Amino acid sequence: MITGKNYIGNELSADGNVVYTTINPKLNIENSWSCTEATSDEIDRAAELSWKAFKAYRNTSQGDRANYLNAIADEIEALGDELISTYCLESGLPEGRAQGERGRTLFQLRSFAEMLKTDSWKLTSRHEAIPDRTPIPMQDLRKSVIPLGPVAVFGSSNFPLAYSTAGGDTASALAAGCPVIVKSHPMHAGTGELVASAIIAAAKKTNMPNGVFSNLNSKGIEVGVRLVKHPRVKAVGFTGSIKAGRALYDIANARPEPIPMFAEMGSINPVVITQRSLEAKGTQWAETYAGSITLGTGQFCTNPGLILGIASPELDSFASHLANKIVEIDPMCMLHPNIKAAYSNIKSEVTSQDGVQVLTATLDTENNFADQAVAVVDGTRFLANPNLHKEVFGPFSIIAKCENEAQLLEIIEGLDGQLTGTILAEDSDIASLTEIVDELQQRVGRIIFNGVPTGVEVSPSMNHGGPYPASTDSRYTAVGTDSVKRWVRLISYQSFPNELLPSELKNG
Amino acid sequence: MITGKNYIGNELSADGNVVYTTINPKLNIENSWSCTEATSDEIDRAAELSWKAFKAYRNTSQGDRANYLNAIADEIEALGDELISTYCLESGLPEGRAQGERGRTLFQLRSFAEMLKTDSWKLTSRHEAIPDRTPIPMQDLRKSVIPLGPVAVFGSSNFPLAYSTAGGDTASALAAGCPVIVKSHPMHAGTGELVASAIIAAAKKTNMPNGVFSNLNSKGIEVGVRLVKHPRVKAVGFTGSIKAGRALYDIANARPEPIPMFAEMGSINPVVITQRSLEAKGTQWAETYAGSITLGTGQFCTNPGLILGIASPELDSFASHLANKIVEIDPMCMLHPNIKAAYSNIKSEVTSQDGVQVLTATLDTENNFADQAVAVVDGTRFLANPNLHKEVFGPFSIIAKCENEAQLLEIIEGLDGQLTGTILAEDSDIASLTEIVDELQQRVGRIIFNGVPTGVEVSPSMNHGGPYPASTDSRYTAVGTDSVKRWVRLISYQSFPNELLPSELKNG
Repeated sequence: MITGKNYIGNELSADGNVVYTTINPKLNIENSWSCTEATSDEIDRAAELSWKAFKAYRNTSQGDRANYLNAIADEIEALGDELISTYCLESGLPEGRAQGERGRTLFQLRSFAEMLKTDSWKLTSRHEAIPDRTPIPMQDLRKSVIPLGPVAVFGSSNFPLAYSTAGGDTASALAAGCPVIVKSHPMHAGTGELVASAIIAAAKKTNMPNGVFSNLNSKGIEVGVRLVKHPRVKAVGFTGSIKAGRALYDIANARPEPIPMFAEMGSINPVVITQRSLEAKGTQWAETYAGSITLGTGQFCTNPGLILGIASPELDSFASHLANKIVEIDPMCMLHPNIKAAYSNIKSEVTSQDGVQVLTATLDTENNFADQAVAVVDGTRFLANPNLHKEVFGPFSIIAKCENEAQLLEIIEGLDGQLTGTILAEDSDIASLTEIVDELQQRVGRIIFNGVPTGVEVSPSMNHGGPYPASTDSRYTAVGTDSVKRWVRLISYQSFPNELLPSELKNG
Repeated sequence: MITGKNYIGNELSADGNVVYTTINPKLNIENSWSCTEATSDEIDRAAELSWKAFKAYRNTSQGDRANYLNAIADEIEALGDELISTYCLESGLPEGRAQGERGRTLFQLRSFAEMLKTDSWKLTSRHEAIPDRTPIPMQDLRKSVIPLGPVAVFGSSNFPLAYSTAGGDTASALAAGCPVIVKSHPMHAGTGELVASAIIAAAKKTNMPNGVFSNLNSKGIEVGVRLVKHPRVKAVGFTGSIKAGRALYDIANARPEPIPMFAEMGSINPVVITQRSLEAKGTQWAETYAGSITLGTGQFCTNPGLILGIASPELDSFASHLANKIVEIDPMCMLHPNIKAAYSNIKSEVTSQDGVQVLTATLDTENNFADQAVAVVDGTRFLANPNLHKEVFGPFSIIAKCENEAQLLEIIEGLDGQLTGTILAEDSDIASLTEIVDELQQRVGRIIFNGVPTGVEVSPSMNHGGPYPASTDSRYTAVGTDSVKRWVRLISYQSFPNELLPSELKNG
């Protein structure tokens, strides 16, 4: 049941007077429940409680934390249809997507529980004592990791489950031994509260300390800013826009005690298609990419927003084929009127730049349904105009027709950091792709051969992140069990008695 | 031979007109050579050259980089007596220390060369394709790391070799595949140039690209600031003061493209001594700590600057024994008149706080020789007065006499982040130390049992770093082969042809 209240640890609380509702974007009406924004006092109480909880939670066994994560998954499953229907009402996304995303969320939680079955994720190291070493003896030295402390989590609008309240940031932080305070996303606050209730229920069932998890409603920026500034908060996980992410990142860095903030932000996910690929499979790729560009109404952080090729009749033909295919797809609903408005505005801005030609017929859409579009521009203009490098969050892609490979390489080298880069090529191209691969991998966190960037596997081999502004720290991933490394730090134990060592470093 | 010029890649250059000398702190006179500060144009040339070099250097084999690192070690050894005598003239440190530190520096370089014999440091991961997975096939996914790009290195004053021009930051960055631009330390610019000449000679002998290494003289802050702001610089390694480190850290974070900066900064390295330890070994520990506090004239980042015990006659006796022992040691020279002046000023500030009692007799010292000292204060005053928590860089330590264990724990929890924490205790204490260990490890990067914090092993099990302000990112170490992780980032390859994968990810 949605109460619209905050969870300050295990307690529901709604002391404030800022009340807001979520929107059903398909019908463009308000949903029937309303939420109360957390007050400064509630934020401070959540932070202090998380600190108190940290003292106990950091010393829980991995087995206990695994039980907690598995219980969270079970409790989310037990929310049943209410979760799915709330998700759909708040996001405009179809039921199949809600179910798929729930499955992914449960899998993430259970993957971390599985990871906690052994200590291998801690990358422990031991250097034996050498008492007779000269000039001074080598002391016994052992290294492991410990949790950073309470983590503030900012979920994204576009994945109300998998990258939100109980998403990858929360699951990885809880696995690490860090309490979590979620700044609830205002667009899916009801979904968020339902998931929060499951996390709280699981905490109670598995005897986790009160304060290991809190959920704070927020309408404006105040809750997030206060959380990131709070001295009890020791790290931040964020998924969202460059503008919001950078603002919070600057706040995290400017604290008297700066804290690590991992933000996964925007990306246009460039795709390079070779002449041979255009000749052999241009039509097929056009069809595949019409699907990838419109997947989730284009609201994927890995959405392919830029396609690079060398100008040729085959590239023109690919472009017009893509344009034709993409308008055959039924327009789909975006997440929120604000997101639809931003899509229309930025798309208009990009397509009104000099030399940009829109290839798609104008689609009639109502409410918050998006009119997918494809545009084309020559490589010289693309190189010269940074406005064309902006992310258009939605079902849109621009094709840059390069003069030659040198220009294509120059465009790649000049791109902002990206989550992904893709190469569409034939086997006979491979020998000549070394330079493109070398430059493209410098700009991206994941590089794909003959595929689409949309779809991010939850795997230890996944890197979801990339050079700034794809993320604020390209040395970490937001997806896969390695994402736990964001929330732990190193510690060495020198000449320590066995009884006082953490279990993973004890003898035998 | 010291020319006083900058190395812009392989070329010596001195276009500027800001000329400075280094100081012989023992005699308080200028050394006979002078150095020319790098101009803005020289900094930009070094940065552009490093970027050009990066394109080749990032694709060198690990074997080639290992050869380069080993050649650097050989060339530094070949500098022979000139390096040792220059080091001593510029630092006031004794010859034995110079030789020891050179040995450590060579060991570090060769350790990274050894690390590069295998790919295990890259922590690669592979997830096999599952073509028949439903609803969508699992693509082959492999993960590894690639270098970040050119790294700016700021060496410390107190280790002119091991944490400077060819120190751990430079060695780890070169091992990672990152070109290095050193901002030469003005206090040992001659030593720095000699080491730089060895790095350049090694680069030529092993056919490394011009620009893989540059060395820029600097007298003021301008060179460092311009380097950290430069768009071609992609990461920063720093060892030095909190003030300078934080200023540069803020600049690195405020860039349009923020870059990772690992700064190892100040620390007071708390030591806890139990009542039983005082009773059983108080005299012995007092003697040991008189040595640790004065090691390198107290100019170690791991210098024990705070000793915590519960008030008792045995703690008083320990304190007076320590005071007596420490003044028996001959005063030693500090690194520079500015460092001596800062030591005197901050020591005076700390010892003039309410309730602080200096236990040591005043020592007559001349030039830049330091008058080591020990002071004592009660725990309540220590808790209440942040001025007493300041690092006094030099041979000084303060003993805080706590009322009881609760106050001792409160002091520990309120400390800034530290490189190290030490517990001196008897075996019979161990069962009752759990809480102290739990709180102390939250504040430190390395925790030592019955030893001294001075002395940092170069080992994969070493963590040299800690919570802010001990370092700017407690998730990394500055010492040991794991320090290479600061300079590489993650990348995943999806469905990639074997021919285009990096060697460590290829089949078989």
